[in-house]
Amino acid sequence: MQALVFDGREARVVERPAPEPAPGMAVVAVRWAGVCRTDLELCRGYMDFRGVLGHEFVGRVVEGPDAWRGARVVGEINFACGRCDACARGLGRHCPQRTVMGIAGADGAIAERVAVPVANLHRVPDAVADERAVFAEPLAAAHEILEQVAVAPGTRAVVLGDGKLGLLVAQVLGAAGARVTALGHHDAKLALLARRGIETARAEAWNGPPAPLVVEATGSVAGFRRAIALCQPRGTLVLKSTVAAQEALDLAPIVIHEIRVVGSRCGPFAPALAALAAERVDVDGLVSDRLPLARAADALARAAERGALKVLIDCGAPRV
Amino acid sequence: MQALVFDGREARVVERPAPEPAPGMAVVAVRWAGVCRTDLELCRGYMDFRGVLGHEFVGRVVEGPDAWRGARVVGEINFACGRCDACARGLGRHCPQRTVMGIAGADGAIAERVAVPVANLHRVPDAVADERAVFAEPLAAAHEILEQVAVAPGTRAVVLGDGKLGLLVAQVLGAAGARVTALGHHDAKLALLARRGIETARAEAWNGPPAPLVVEATGSVAGFRRAIALCQPRGTLVLKSTVAAQEALDLAPIVIHEIRVVGSRCGPFAPALAALAAERVDVDGLVSDRLPLARAADALARAAERGALKVLIDCGAPRV
Repeated sequence: MQALVFDGREARVVERPAPEPAPGMAVVAVRWAGVCRTDLELCRGYMDFRGVLGHEFVGRVVEGPDAWRGARVVGEINFACGRCDACARGLGRHCPQRTVMGIAGADGAIAERVAVPVANLHRVPDAVADERAVFAEPLAAAHEILEQVAVAPGTRAVVLGDGKLGLLVAQVLGAAGARVTALGHHDAKLALLARRGIETARAEAWNGPPAPLVVEATGSVAGFRRAIALCQPRGTLVLKSTVAAQEALDLAPIVIHEIRVVGSRCGPFAPALAALAAERVDVDGLVSDRLPLARAADALARAAERGALKVLIDCGAPRV
Repeated sequence: MQALVFDGREARVVERPAPEPAPGMAVVAVRWAGVCRTDLELCRGYMDFRGVLGHEFVGRVVEGPDAWRGARVVGEINFACGRCDACARGLGRHCPQRTVMGIAGADGAIAERVAVPVANLHRVPDAVADERAVFAEPLAAAHEILEQVAVAPGTRAVVLGDGKLGLLVAQVLGAAGARVTALGHHDAKLALLARRGIETARAEAWNGPPAPLVVEATGSVAGFRRAIALCQPRGTLVLKSTVAAQEALDLAPIVIHEIRVVGSRCGPFAPALAALAAERVDVDGLVSDRLPLARAADALARAAERGALKVLIDCGAPRV
């Protein structure tokens, strides 16, 4: 099969053996895969990954248990061991033995086929088209915030960052009843939120008051500093993006204002699929480009361009 | 009166007018005052403070409402405005208009007398001797953790730092039923905890497993990094000390392991006084030295010595 492989030096589409069916696993013929910022970071050495890239996909089960064969599916990306303490506590997404699809120790989905544990599969509701279903994984990550933080209706929330994740987070919080202000640097991206009735502003121009809930989705040190400054005393700052400060960073305001900083990573697929089915979240406006699998390396380059949003890769499985 | 004043350059005992009684205020004749690490930082320019130092004290009310006159008291250090939104929500300790005794805009307690809002006073139970009552403020800060984090009996907790605050935090968490491991660098300090039945270890030698609750009380970047590494996925890291990284700091593990970082500052006096009355916390072993008010500048120098714990200053009010 064709697959986008990172060999430690560069990402190229190469011919690879298709995954074989194994106990507890399903093989999915991939319809669409999405490019995530993490994929770009993996190509810069993050996680020391080698193998097939990609962890956002929708496709059809072609091998696996009878009950799943032919099902249109998306899949969770953390492959848990199922036997350790973390798994016993329901924290499979934090299993220390886990592999992660296209990120750590497991091949990813930018390929004709991908192997996924059956336990990780979710059927896609009929109401959700393929090109929307491929957003299930990042949208689940946005929903993770609702698992971690109580968001009462009317809660003021500031979302920093108008990248893909920021745009999803702002919509998820808005759909949960929060009064969201989304701050970014790209008028076109912010306009997408404005059309959904969400207040938006250019980050550099906004001087509104601190909020009880702030979400940092820029991944930059400047964004993290701004997020702390915008968080009310005893407020909650959700970190959705990894931040590695290469310069001095003053954490004293976290103590002085008793801020709660909550790291937030992968999330639950069920509410994400429900939000897509009910059209509570607009993902159509987030697609910057569509490219065929043969041009997947170009898709990475396109996704890295300033202002780009989601780049989808057509992995060739027949429309399902 | 005599008072220890920081003039922006150095801290000296000088003659100052005693505070006058004002509406809503009490004047307290100070018996003992304690030196805190914050006092040393103020003398290095922190908060740009000028005035009488000191925010840990016990004394006797000599001027103020009849109901309080003669009472043996300790006092909360945040002087709230009582009229703003934060105050209305019961967050007077975060009132944006607040002054803070001996730290920001209000004279402190290393003096013969100190002015304190009546609303901030707490009567000292008869069972608590003066030299123990002076620990009410830092012990309240240790109790703040119990206000912020649910500590179920048997919860494993690691406390990093065997300074004054770390020793109090370890005891408070132990008294709350946590299974505490205290990590530090000073055998004599750790022995104080071992006598209370708390597990202790040299920080550099310990390689126990990550815990669901970690308290950072070293105030160092190295301590913060270790605290993150020692925190279980979905665990809670309480920051009791302000950390200002002058070097690169990788916050990615907070996101990857979905750690909750909780800044923690001043706390409630009532449970602190109750813990002192019931002798659930040993503070006697925390006293490194006692000096008279006339030698308060030497007391600061003594408190700054490596290995020193609490230095108490005898402010001269008759024993009450």
